[in-house]
Amino acid sequence: MFLRNEWYVAGFSREFCERPLQRWVLGEPLALFRTASGRAVILEDRCPHRGAPLSSGEVCGESLTCGYHGFAFGPSGACTHIPGMSTIPPQARVRSYAVIERWGWVFVWMGEADQADESRLPDYHWLNEPGWEGRSEYLPVKANYCYVRDNLLDLTHARYVHRKTLGTSAVTDYPIHTEMHGRGVRVTREMPGIEPSPFFRRMGGFTGPVDHRQQIDFTPPCHVVINTRVTSIVGGSENLSAEFQVLNALTPENERSTHYFWGLMRNFALGDEAVTEMQQKLNRETFFEDLSILEQQQMLLDCKPEGWRPVAIPNDGGCLQAERLMSRLIAAENRS
Amino acid sequence: MFLRNEWYVAGFSREFCERPLQRWVLGEPLALFRTASGRAVILEDRCPHRGAPLSSGEVCGESLTCGYHGFAFGPSGACTHIPGMSTIPPQARVRSYAVIERWGWVFVWMGEADQADESRLPDYHWLNEPGWEGRSEYLPVKANYCYVRDNLLDLTHARYVHRKTLGTSAVTDYPIHTEMHGRGVRVTREMPGIEPSPFFRRMGGFTGPVDHRQQIDFTPPCHVVINTRVTSIVGGSENLSAEFQVLNALTPENERSTHYFWGLMRNFALGDEAVTEMQQKLNRETFFEDLSILEQQQMLLDCKPEGWRPVAIPNDGGCLQAERLMSRLIAAENRS
Amino acid sequence: MFLRNEWYVAGFSREFCERPLQRWVLGEPLALFRTASGRAVILEDRCPHRGAPLSSGEVCGESLTCGYHGFAFGPSGACTHIPGMSTIPPQARVRSYAVIERWGWVFVWMGEADQADESRLPDYHWLNEPGWEGRSEYLPVKANYCYVRDNLLDLTHARYVHRKTLGTSAVTDYPIHTEMHGRGVRVTREMPGIEPSPFFRRMGGFTGPVDHRQQIDFTPPCHVVINTRVTSIVGGSENLSAEFQVLNALTPENERSTHYFWGLMRNFALGDEAVTEMQQKLNRETFFEDLSILEQQQMLLDCKPEGWRPVAIPNDGGCLQAERLMSRLIAAENRS
Repeated sequence: MFLRNEWYVAGFSREFCERPLQRWVLGEPLALFRTASGRAVILEDRCPHRGAPLSSGEVCGESLTCGYHGFAFGPSGACTHIPGMSTIPPQARVRSYAVIERWGWVFVWMGEADQADESRLPDYHWLNEPGWEGRSEYLPVKANYCYVRDNLLDLTHARYVHRKTLGTSAVTDYPIHTEMHGRGVRVTREMPGIEPSPFFRRMGGFTGPVDHRQQIDFTPPCHVVINTRVTSIVGGSENLSAEFQVLNALTPENERSTHYFWGLMRNFALGDEAVTEMQQKLNRETFFEDLSILEQQQMLLDCKPEGWRPVAIPNDGGCLQAERLMSRLIAAENRS
Repeated sequence: MFLRNEWYVAGFSREFCERPLQRWVLGEPLALFRTASGRAVILEDRCPHRGAPLSSGEVCGESLTCGYHGFAFGPSGACTHIPGMSTIPPQARVRSYAVIERWGWVFVWMGEADQADESRLPDYHWLNEPGWEGRSEYLPVKANYCYVRDNLLDLTHARYVHRKTLGTSAVTDYPIHTEMHGRGVRVTREMPGIEPSPFFRRMGGFTGPVDHRQQIDFTPPCHVVINTRVTSIVGGSENLSAEFQVLNALTPENERSTHYFWGLMRNFALGDEAVTEMQQKLNRETFFEDLSILEQQQMLLDCKPEGWRPVAIPNDGGCLQAERLMSRLIAAENRS
Repeated sequence: MFLRNEWYVAGFSREFCERPLQRWVLGEPLALFRTASGRAVILEDRCPHRGAPLSSGEVCGESLTCGYHGFAFGPSGACTHIPGMSTIPPQARVRSYAVIERWGWVFVWMGEADQADESRLPDYHWLNEPGWEGRSEYLPVKANYCYVRDNLLDLTHARYVHRKTLGTSAVTDYPIHTEMHGRGVRVTREMPGIEPSPFFRRMGGFTGPVDHRQQIDFTPPCHVVINTRVTSIVGGSENLSAEFQVLNALTPENERSTHYFWGLMRNFALGDEAVTEMQQKLNRETFFEDLSILEQQQMLLDCKPEGWRPVAIPNDGGCLQAERLMSRLIAAENRS
């Protein structure tokens, strides 16, 4: 079950254009498009006439015209035109979703549009904050979004899954600290005086020992921001310190599939496109390493024996708090 | 649910040959073949011995020999030979279907063979009528046959789906007339003095304004014959008038898949193979445009929210009458 | 339903190595690997920590380390190491399966490991018996293992399915003899003075008439050993007699998929690698001919009409006895 009264990332701004796009979110078909006046709009992608996909049609002015028999629908979801008819039956409408476009990402409120609460918008402001540089990408994952969330909330996996990039044995040598923070859960790990990981060695030019801090913020329903900061504790390195914000929006396509939108922003080597290319490439490869684990995990837990319960250890603190928090929120939403 | 006591198209005559063919109709496996004496035969494609496909075997004289252990079955479905046995157990038989081969198409009666009623055979006589010329083709569609039927009964979709070929805005400017006709439903649309569509421009050489009539006959369970006639109302066109019979047999493979057999016959440019090639190519491309809409429609209606009901407009008249007629017939068949 | 308290072939010895392998047996995920000391081990391939596949990790000494967060498990299934922890929770363990490695094949006991009964190990000793020569191969079959078993217990199919290789019409001219033998079922067919099949003609150089005996031993749950012996009854042939042991282990992957491990051993032309190549190639091609029949059989019996019952003839004697035996054993196991 999903939380409905929350913001999910529906796509990047660049995906909302004159040519409509179909994307399924929480098991519902959405038509994404941009009107002639530049407004990003999301409508239910199922024409009330015959059930055809509106996204097979085209944008005309402020409306989306169905590609089957030409019914047109405005941003409110109301039908604005039916070919050959002068009056429009009032039931000719589709659901319209509340949308906020910000920082180059487009967020959709999956509950009733008139209850959309902008104050609950997750914070991804680094995406266009001066002093931060990087790019956004998309990765489809054939696994439940919670498995992706837990992957990000327990970074000890880097030592095993990402041995060649992010891996450092220090990740399992230092404990995490878990706490409730804002509306969500924060996990922090301080690793003082360790050898820099291959990633930081390559990206930041760190050679000698560093202080490395990881801080992971989970905000319901599916937003994870990882701040990872490395500070040189001896001279001779190219940078004194370097910081990344890894931005992760895990939008459920359905119960067993996730739209993974990620951004990677750094606060050094600004203006250096070659560094941007390299960081994106390394991160992309890193996420591909997670993919097969996550998809197998889905398959193995789909057929787990009755009574199977995961064995928890302290490093799972963030995952467990996130899970409990989500259970409470979903139960509360279903009660109301 | 399907109507059983009706004729469906099982295949083209050219598909019934010495090499047997498996085809599923109404969710049942059929073995199609032609005996040595030239008879088109359809048997249940599941050997009563071990459940192997008879169609994996070969035709020997008037029988089909199973490809697994050599049981042979004649046109009646009775076993005619079991290797190594002199007597044949009476329960060694498969179901035999009543078959009529006509006009180059082969029709199968899906009810009990002894109740097959030739008077209910749908009329596709244009397929080999002197004065008509064209060809038959096959297209598999991953959608319920009713979605294909409704596609053909409401040709206003041509303006949107087939903009580059059949499309003409007139199709939504003139209303349809719907009536019960024979055993089925007839939809007629007269479009006087309109610009010819790109298809007729190209196929019939029409340049100036034309009278264009569409007449669509649906006959249960799944037969749609479209007569479309264009008549020049000024001089100078290559033809004074031109007519097509678009023949459509929508045989359900199962609940979500259709064998679409179609023929396209014209009454002009007879003997001109280049025109035949062109009309087949244009029509084939046209049907491909429908495919993705139909398959998406299936997917979107598969997961429609509870209580979802299509919004009907006058252009749906033919679809709605066809649907009601089929519901009545299916209910009656299930009662009897 | 499957028999659990029996030995199944899990793989070839050569598949157990430092790089772990995932294989599903009876619907359960197994991690196959070989420890540093050379022991073949099979563990449940689902980490108790988060459900990740252990087989995504690597072998370290006597343990298998999970590829996600580094939990390590020894041959007993007990966790031997958790990164960052000094104590190990007792529930951190996976199921360990009893294993016997013999003749180059590895057998797994799918019941409780402490009840593994070596006396029930099926006999495939020809695999490394002096005087016998050949090789083992693997074929995945998308059909229930019982359909493969019945294929092997009724070799009359050779005449139809394997016309070009094993086929001889004699196979349907001579009856079989069926009897209980050891823990299983034995089917024998004697074919005196027949023309040699293309396979024996080519493999053994038989030209004139031969006595051909087939003896098929089925041992529960899924083991079939076929002894096929040809003896020349006139002079002039290259060999006086030739014998094959066709070894077949049909391990269920799940209800509709089978791991088919087979070995083909001969007692003549020893040391001639070209003959080995040829026998393997011919047998491989022969099994490919069975594949499509078996997979269609699965599909056709999946949707058989209610009340459908196979028609049995004397040649099914072995299949029917095997089926009854298995039913009894499964019922008995479920009672206990």
